[in-house]
Amino acid sequence: MRLEDLGLREGINETIAVTFFEDGRPNTAPVGVVVKDGKAKVRLYPSHTRNNVEREGRIWINVVWDPIVFALSTFEDLGEEWFESIKPPILRNALAWCEFECVAVGDGNPAEFELRLRDGSVVRREVRAVNRGFNALLEALICATRIETDAGMRSRIRELSRIVEKCGDSRTKEAFEIVLRRIR
Amino acid sequence: MRLEDLGLREGINETIAVTFFEDGRPNTAPVGVVVKDGKAKVRLYPSHTRNNVEREGRIWINVVWDPIVFALSTFEDLGEEWFESIKPPILRNALAWCEFECVAVGDGNPAEFELRLRDGSVVRREVRAVNRGFNALLEALICATRIETDAGMRSRIRELSRIVEKCGDSRTKEAFEIVLRRIR
Repeated sequence: MRLEDLGLREGINETIAVTFFEDGRPNTAPVGVVVKDGKAKVRLYPSHTRNNVEREGRIWINVVWDPIVFALSTFEDLGEEWFESIKPPILRNALAWCEFECVAVGDGNPAEFELRLRDGSVVRREVRAVNRGFNALLEALICATRIETDAGMRSRIRELSRIVEKCGDSRTKEAFEIVLRRIR
Repeated sequence: MRLEDLGLREGINETIAVTFFEDGRPNTAPVGVVVKDGKAKVRLYPSHTRNNVEREGRIWINVVWDPIVFALSTFEDLGEEWFESIKPPILRNALAWCEFECVAVGDGNPAEFELRLRDGSVVRREVRAVNRGFNALLEALICATRIETDAGMRSRIRELSRIVEKCGDSRTKEAFEIVLRRIR
């Protein structure tokens, strides 16, 4: 099984990571999986995800295109109702999941972890054309996380809202409303 | 067969359209297929694509994610070496193709055509995570087509180049070089 067969290709793959708290509850967060020369790694700033990775040495990556999953998991943990399986953790509408062993390779900030593929499979395959509205939502989510430290993000989100309105589907527009509510 | 099964979903689908000149040569161009309430339409400014659609009443839509296909077809027609089939016209690496009958429903500028699905199929299904580098390339292509009339596009393309460099795969970076050469 290669990373590419599971949807993880060269470059930075925007995915949803699942890790587990000590009490077994799942933690979810958007994570960029960097793939280069067939190897995967992640860079993690201080977060629940990083705490869990440091304690358990495991991360589960979901390849998913649901705009609401991206929007919610940017701001909070997805509840169990968002999972179609907990062991292994597979999100509703996910295309693929992978389990990785995490090996710390740099303890700066962000800390860097090499990811070693342990398990994974394709859940469903779909055909989807490029949609700029979805892409704009994803950029808006990144802007939203930077809004406290960069005032320019607010006007950038307004620009992106025009693309979402023009090009997005109703689920992407709903996800964009989540962003707008959070930055009010 | 529904539009969604062929990759065309609610919102604007960024695709490559193929039409034919009178002499049978294929013409290719990026086209946004608008899907709303299960119906598809396109809006076309004066172009070879529009001339061919007006003459033949037919358009073939390819759902594709190849950054070089998007980059080249923004600036020129793809040669026959870019097709894995000419009848029907299927581009290399395309995920799906559809043949539509085009019915003019507005002759302003852009002219609007309703698209009636006549044929189509899924060529391949793949699993792919979101990649911001690819998305940035697509935005840069749109900026490149507006650069003559909007000087701000040049600095926007520079901003996008940073995302392509950081997140994109090598094929996306190669496609971005095509953009840069064209706007020099």
